[in-house]
Amino acid sequence: MLILGVDPGTAITGYGLVRVQGNKLDAVSYGCIRTDAGLPLHQRLQKINSEISRLIREFKPTHFAIEELFFNKNTRTALSVGQARGVALLAAANAGLEIAEYTPLQVKQAVVGYGRADKNQVQYMVKTILCLPEIPKPDDTADALAVAICHSHFYKMEDIFLIRGK
Amino acid sequence: MLILGVDPGTAITGYGLVRVQGNKLDAVSYGCIRTDAGLPLHQRLQKINSEISRLIREFKPTHFAIEELFFNKNTRTALSVGQARGVALLAAANAGLEIAEYTPLQVKQAVVGYGRADKNQVQYMVKTILCLPEIPKPDDTADALAVAICHSHFYKMEDIFLIRGK
Repeated sequence: MLILGVDPGTAITGYGLVRVQGNKLDAVSYGCIRTDAGLPLHQRLQKINSEISRLIREFKPTHFAIEELFFNKNTRTALSVGQARGVALLAAANAGLEIAEYTPLQVKQAVVGYGRADKNQVQYMVKTILCLPEIPKPDDTADALAVAICHSHFYKMEDIFLIRGK
Repeated sequence: MLILGVDPGTAITGYGLVRVQGNKLDAVSYGCIRTDAGLPLHQRLQKINSEISRLIREFKPTHFAIEELFFNKNTRTALSVGQARGVALLAAANAGLEIAEYTPLQVKQAVVGYGRADKNQVQYMVKTILCLPEIPKPDDTADALAVAICHSHFYKMEDIFLIRGK
Protein backbone atom coordinates (compact mmCIF):
# COMPACT_ATOMS: atom_id res chain seq x y z
CA MET A 1 0.00 0.00 0.00
CA LEU A 2 1.31 3.43 -0.91
CA ILE A 3 -0.19 6.43 0.90
CA LEU A 4 -0.01 10.04 -0.22
CA GLY A 5 -0.31 12.38 2.76
CA VAL A 6 -0.90 16.05 2.09
CA ASP A 7 -0.82 19.15 4.28
CA PRO A 8 -2.43 21.83 2.11
CA GLY A 9 -1.79 25.57 2.04
CA THR A 10 -1.91 28.24 -0.63
CA ALA A 11 1.76 29.16 -0.25
CA ILE A 12 3.18 25.76 0.77
CA THR A 13 1.54 22.35 0.39
CA GLY A 14 3.52 19.57 2.02
CA TYR A 15 3.37 16.04 0.66
CA GLY A 16 4.72 12.68 1.73
CA LEU A 17 4.48 9.28 0.08
CA VAL A 18 4.69 6.43 2.58
CA ARG A 19 4.88 2.77 1.56
CA VAL A 20 3.48 0.19 3.97
CA GLN A 21 4.84 -3.36 3.81
CA GLY A 22 3.77 -5.42 6.80
CA ASN A 23 4.94 -3.43 9.80
CA LYS A 24 7.50 -1.51 7.80
CA LEU A 25 6.95 2.08 6.72
CA ASP A 26 9.13 3.75 4.10
CA ALA A 27 9.17 7.33 2.92
CA VAL A 28 9.24 6.94 -0.88
CA SER A 29 9.26 10.66 -1.58
CA TYR A 30 8.43 13.84 0.30
CA GLY A 31 8.68 17.57 -0.13
CA CYS A 32 6.48 20.53 -0.76
CA ILE A 33 4.74 22.44 -3.52
CA ARG A 34 5.46 26.15 -3.29
CA THR A 35 3.44 28.77 -5.11
CA ASP A 36 4.58 32.30 -5.78
CA ALA A 37 2.71 34.94 -3.74
CA GLY A 38 2.87 37.21 -6.80
CA LEU A 39 0.68 34.88 -8.87
CA PRO A 40 -3.10 35.27 -9.07
CA LEU A 41 -4.89 32.93 -6.67
CA HIS A 42 -6.39 30.77 -9.41
CA GLN A 43 -2.93 30.06 -10.84
CA ARG A 44 -1.65 29.09 -7.40
CA LEU A 45 -4.58 26.69 -6.98
CA GLN A 46 -3.95 25.29 -10.46
CA LYS A 47 -0.34 24.59 -9.53
CA ILE A 48 -1.30 22.78 -6.30
CA ASN A 49 -3.89 20.68 -8.13
CA SER A 50 -1.66 19.82 -11.08
CA GLU A 51 1.41 19.03 -8.96
CA ILE A 52 -0.60 16.64 -6.78
CA SER A 53 -2.03 15.04 -9.92
CA ARG A 54 1.53 14.70 -11.22
CA LEU A 55 2.70 13.02 -7.99
CA ILE A 56 -0.23 10.58 -8.27
CA ARG A 57 0.63 9.75 -11.88
CA GLU A 58 4.32 9.33 -11.05
CA PHE A 59 4.11 7.28 -7.84
CA LYS A 60 0.65 5.70 -8.21
CA PRO A 61 -0.44 5.83 -4.56
CA THR A 62 -3.68 4.00 -3.75
CA HIS A 63 -4.59 6.02 -0.65
CA PHE A 64 -4.78 9.70 0.13
CA ALA A 65 -4.70 11.06 3.68
CA ILE A 66 -5.34 14.61 4.82
CA GLU A 67 -6.00 16.35 8.12
CA GLU A 68 -9.44 17.54 9.04
CA LEU A 69 -8.99 21.09 10.12
CA PHE A 70 -10.36 22.81 13.16
CA PHE A 71 -9.28 26.38 13.25
CA ASN A 72 -8.66 28.60 16.19
CA LYS A 73 -7.01 31.04 13.87
CA ASN A 74 -8.71 33.71 11.83
CA THR A 75 -11.30 33.10 9.12
CA ARG A 76 -9.01 34.53 6.45
CA THR A 77 -6.54 31.69 7.07
CA ALA A 78 -9.37 29.14 7.07
CA LEU A 79 -10.67 30.40 3.73
CA SER A 80 -7.19 30.31 2.22
CA VAL A 81 -6.38 26.81 3.51
CA GLY A 82 -9.87 25.68 2.45
CA GLN A 83 -9.21 26.65 -1.17
CA ALA A 84 -5.92 24.76 -1.27
CA ARG A 85 -7.49 21.81 0.53
CA GLY A 86 -10.35 21.72 -1.97
CA VAL A 87 -8.12 21.48 -5.03
CA ALA A 88 -5.87 18.92 -3.31
CA LEU A 89 -8.85 16.69 -2.44
CA LEU A 90 -10.15 17.10 -5.97
CA ALA A 91 -6.87 15.82 -7.46
CA ALA A 92 -7.08 12.71 -5.29
CA ALA A 93 -10.79 12.14 -5.94
CA ASN A 94 -10.39 12.55 -9.71
CA ALA A 95 -7.58 10.00 -9.67
CA GLY A 96 -9.84 7.53 -7.83
CA LEU A 97 -7.74 7.26 -4.67
CA GLU A 98 -9.27 6.05 -1.43
CA ILE A 99 -9.54 9.19 0.69
CA ALA A 100 -9.28 9.41 4.47
CA GLU A 101 -9.45 12.42 6.77
CA TYR A 102 -8.06 12.50 10.29
CA THR A 103 -8.33 14.96 13.12
CA PRO A 104 -5.12 16.47 14.53
CA LEU A 105 -5.83 14.39 17.66
CA GLN A 106 -5.87 11.16 15.65
CA VAL A 107 -2.63 12.09 13.89
CA LYS A 108 -0.86 12.77 17.17
CA GLN A 109 -2.20 9.60 18.75
CA ALA A 110 -1.08 7.50 15.79
CA VAL A 111 2.36 9.06 15.42
CA VAL A 112 3.40 9.88 19.00
CA GLY A 113 1.04 7.71 21.03
CA TYR A 114 -0.92 10.45 22.73
CA GLY A 115 -3.15 13.22 21.46
CA ARG A 116 -1.64 16.16 23.30
CA ALA A 117 1.82 15.75 21.82
CA ASP A 118 3.44 18.97 20.58
CA LYS A 119 4.70 19.75 17.08
CA ASN A 120 8.33 18.87 17.93
CA GLN A 121 7.39 15.46 19.26
CA VAL A 122 5.36 14.70 16.12
CA GLN A 123 8.25 15.75 13.90
CA TYR A 124 10.76 13.73 15.90
CA MET A 125 8.57 10.62 15.65
CA VAL A 126 8.07 11.11 11.90
CA LYS A 127 11.86 11.09 11.50
CA THR A 128 12.23 8.03 13.77
CA ILE A 129 9.38 5.94 12.33
CA LEU A 130 10.52 6.52 8.74
CA CYS A 131 14.26 6.24 9.59
CA LEU A 132 14.99 9.60 8.00
CA PRO A 133 18.42 11.23 8.36
CA GLU A 134 16.80 14.39 9.75
CA ILE A 135 13.43 16.01 10.46
CA PRO A 136 11.84 16.88 7.09
CA LYS A 137 11.55 20.58 6.39
CA PRO A 138 9.45 22.67 6.12
CA ASP A 139 6.89 21.74 8.83
CA ASP A 140 4.27 21.17 6.11
CA THR A 141 6.31 18.26 4.74
CA ALA A 142 6.67 16.65 8.17
CA ASP A 143 2.92 17.14 8.76
CA ALA A 144 2.10 15.50 5.43
CA LEU A 145 4.23 12.48 6.35
CA ALA A 146 2.55 12.39 9.78
CA VAL A 147 -0.95 12.12 8.34
CA ALA A 148 0.24 9.39 5.94
CA ILE A 149 1.69 7.44 8.91
CA CYS A 150 -1.59 8.00 10.75
CA HIS A 151 -3.52 6.47 7.87
CA SER A 152 -1.28 3.39 7.85
CA HIS A 153 -2.05 2.86 11.56
CA PHE A 154 -5.81 3.30 11.27
CA TYR A 155 -5.92 1.18 8.14
CA LYS A 156 -4.13 -1.66 9.91
CA MET A 157 -6.43 -1.38 12.92
CA GLU A 158 -9.43 -1.61 10.65
CA ASP A 159 -7.94 -4.77 9.13
CA ILE A 160 -7.45 -6.31 12.56
CA PHE A 161 -10.94 -5.47 13.79
CA LEU A 162 -12.61 -6.11 10.43
CA ILE A 163 -14.27 -2.74 10.61
CA ARG A 164 -13.79 -1.87 6.97
CA GLY A 165 -16.71 -2.17 4.61
CA LYS A 166 -19.32 -2.03 7.35
CA MET B 1 -19.14 38.91 -23.84
CA LEU B 2 -20.58 36.10 -21.74
CA ILE B 3 -19.85 36.14 -18.00
CA LEU B 4 -20.19 33.21 -15.63
CA GLY B 5 -20.79 34.44 -12.09
CA VAL B 6 -20.50 31.93 -9.26
CA ASP B 7 -21.39 32.03 -5.56
CA PRO B 8 -19.67 28.97 -4.14
CA GLY B 9 -20.69 26.78 -1.22
CA THR B 10 -20.31 23.12 -0.37
CA ALA B 11 -24.08 22.50 -0.18
CA ILE B 12 -25.27 25.04 -2.77
CA THR B 13 -23.23 26.78 -5.43
CA GLY B 14 -25.17 29.42 -7.30
CA TYR B 15 -24.32 30.26 -10.91
CA GLY B 16 -25.50 32.82 -13.42
CA LEU B 17 -24.54 33.35 -17.06
CA VAL B 18 -24.94 36.96 -18.15
CA ARG B 19 -24.48 38.10 -21.75
CA VAL B 20 -23.36 41.68 -22.35
CA GLN B 21 -24.24 43.34 -25.64
CA GLY B 22 -23.63 47.05 -25.59
CA ASN B 23 -25.60 48.30 -22.62
CA LYS B 24 -27.90 45.31 -22.59
CA LEU B 25 -27.52 42.51 -20.07
CA ASP B 26 -29.28 39.17 -20.50
CA ALA B 27 -29.47 36.21 -18.17
CA VAL B 28 -28.68 33.29 -20.47
CA SER B 29 -28.98 30.66 -17.76
CA TYR B 30 -28.93 30.57 -13.97
CA GLY B 31 -29.51 28.15 -11.17
CA CYS B 32 -27.57 26.26 -8.57
CA ILE B 33 -25.51 23.12 -8.07
CA ARG B 34 -26.69 21.20 -5.02
CA THR B 35 -24.63 18.50 -3.37
CA ASP B 36 -26.01 15.87 -1.04
CA ALA B 37 -24.90 16.33 2.59
CA GLY B 38 -24.69 12.54 2.85
CA LEU B 39 -21.87 12.34 0.30
CA PRO B 40 -18.20 12.40 1.33
CA LEU B 41 -16.70 15.88 1.00
CA HIS B 42 -14.42 14.97 -1.90
CA GLN B 43 -17.41 13.78 -3.95
CA ARG B 44 -19.26 17.02 -3.24
CA LEU B 45 -16.22 19.01 -4.39
CA GLN B 46 -15.95 16.82 -7.49
CA LYS B 47 -19.57 17.57 -8.35
CA ILE B 48 -19.11 21.34 -7.97
CA ASN B 49 -15.97 21.28 -10.11
CA SER B 50 -17.42 19.04 -12.82
CA GLU B 51 -20.75 20.89 -13.03
CA ILE B 52 -18.98 24.22 -13.45
CA SER B 53 -16.76 22.67 -16.11
CA ARG B 54 -19.90 21.36 -17.82
CA LEU B 55 -21.52 24.82 -17.78
CA ILE B 56 -18.35 26.27 -19.31
CA ARG B 57 -18.33 23.64 -22.07
CA GLU B 58 -22.05 24.13 -22.76
CA PHE B 59 -22.28 27.94 -22.74
CA LYS B 60 -18.66 28.89 -23.52
CA PRO B 61 -18.39 31.98 -21.29
CA THR B 62 -15.21 34.02 -21.70
CA HIS B 63 -15.19 35.60 -18.24
CA PHE B 64 -15.60 34.25 -14.73
CA ALA B 65 -16.57 36.43 -11.78
CA ILE B 66 -16.59 35.48 -8.10
CA GLU B 67 -16.85 37.35 -4.81
CA GLU B 68 -13.82 37.85 -2.62
CA LEU B 69 -14.89 36.73 0.79
CA PHE B 70 -14.38 38.45 4.08
CA PHE B 71 -15.88 36.46 6.88
CA ASN B 72 -17.36 37.60 10.08
CA LYS B 73 -18.74 34.13 10.58
CA ASN B 74 -16.96 31.19 12.08
CA THR B 75 -13.82 29.60 10.70
CA ARG B 76 -15.64 26.32 10.00
CA THR B 77 -17.84 28.12 7.45
CA ALA B 78 -14.81 29.86 5.94
CA LEU B 79 -12.99 26.55 5.51
CA SER B 80 -16.04 24.95 3.91
CA VAL B 81 -16.68 27.84 1.52
CA GLY B 82 -12.96 27.98 0.77
CA GLN B 83 -12.95 24.39 -0.43
CA ALA B 84 -15.90 24.96 -2.76
CA ARG B 85 -14.42 28.25 -3.93
CA GLY B 86 -11.10 26.56 -4.70
CA VAL B 87 -12.59 23.89 -6.96
CA ALA B 88 -14.85 26.46 -8.67
CA LEU B 89 -11.89 28.75 -9.43
CA LEU B 90 -9.94 25.74 -10.66
CA ALA B 91 -12.65 24.84 -13.18
CA ALA B 92 -12.56 28.38 -14.58
CA ALA B 93 -8.76 28.57 -14.62
CA ASN B 94 -8.39 25.18 -16.32
CA ALA B 95 -10.85 26.29 -19.01
CA GLY B 96 -8.76 29.41 -19.63
CA LEU B 97 -11.44 31.95 -18.63
CA GLU B 98 -10.50 35.46 -17.63
CA ILE B 99 -11.03 35.54 -13.87
CA ALA B 100 -12.11 38.52 -11.77
CA GLU B 101 -12.77 38.78 -8.05
CA TYR B 102 -14.87 41.50 -6.44
CA THR B 103 -15.49 42.51 -2.86
CA PRO B 104 -19.09 42.48 -1.56
CA LEU B 105 -18.84 46.30 -1.51
CA GLN B 106 -17.99 46.41 -5.22
CA VAL B 107 -20.86 44.06 -6.05
CA LYS B 108 -23.37 46.21 -4.15
CA GLN B 109 -22.04 49.40 -5.67
CA ALA B 110 -22.26 47.98 -9.18
CA VAL B 111 -25.70 46.42 -8.80
CA VAL B 112 -27.55 48.81 -6.48
CA GLY B 113 -25.46 51.95 -6.71
CA TYR B 114 -24.22 52.07 -3.17
CA GLY B 115 -22.11 49.78 -1.05
CA ARG B 116 -24.31 49.51 2.01
CA ALA B 117 -27.31 48.09 0.17
CA ASP B 118 -28.96 45.13 1.84
CA LYS B 119 -29.54 41.67 0.42
CA ASN B 120 -33.14 42.41 -0.64
CA GLN B 121 -32.13 45.49 -2.58
CA VAL B 122 -29.42 43.56 -4.40
CA GLN B 123 -31.86 40.79 -5.30
CA TYR B 124 -34.50 43.26 -6.46
CA MET B 125 -31.97 45.02 -8.70
CA VAL B 126 -30.73 41.70 -10.15
CA LYS B 127 -34.33 40.95 -11.17
CA THR B 128 -34.81 44.46 -12.60
CA ILE B 129 -31.50 44.74 -14.48
CA LEU B 130 -31.91 41.32 -16.09
CA CYS B 131 -35.69 41.73 -16.68
CA LEU B 132 -36.45 38.50 -14.87
CA PRO B 133 -40.03 37.50 -14.06
CA GLU B 134 -39.12 37.08 -10.37
CA ILE B 135 -36.19 37.17 -7.97
CA PRO B 136 -34.01 34.12 -8.67
CA LYS B 137 -34.01 31.56 -5.89
CA PRO B 138 -32.14 30.44 -3.87
CA ASP B 139 -30.14 33.47 -2.69
CA ASP B 140 -26.95 31.84 -4.01
CA THR B 141 -28.31 32.06 -7.57
CA ALA B 142 -29.20 35.76 -7.20
CA ASP B 143 -25.74 36.42 -5.70
CA ALA B 144 -24.06 34.65 -8.62
CA LEU B 145 -25.98 36.83 -11.09
CA ALA B 146 -25.07 39.91 -9.03
CA VAL B 147 -21.33 39.26 -9.27
CA ALA B 148 -21.67 38.64 -13.03
CA ILE B 149 -23.49 42.00 -13.39
CA CYS B 150 -20.76 43.60 -11.28
CA HIS B 151 -18.10 42.27 -13.65
CA SER B 152 -19.92 43.68 -16.67
CA HIS B 153 -19.90 47.14 -15.02
CA PHE B 154 -16.24 47.10 -14.04
CA TYR B 155 -15.22 45.68 -17.39
CA LYS B 156 -17.00 48.50 -19.20
CA MET B 157 -15.43 51.09 -16.91
CA GLU B 158 -12.00 49.65 -17.66
CA ASP B 159 -12.75 49.95 -21.36
CA ILE B 160 -13.75 53.58 -20.98
CA PHE B 161 -10.73 54.51 -18.91
CA LEU B 162 -8.35 52.25 -20.82
CA ILE B 163 -7.16 50.73 -17.57
CA ARG B 164 -6.95 47.18 -18.82
CA GLY B 165 -3.60 45.70 -19.66
CA LYS B 166 -1.65 48.16 -17.55
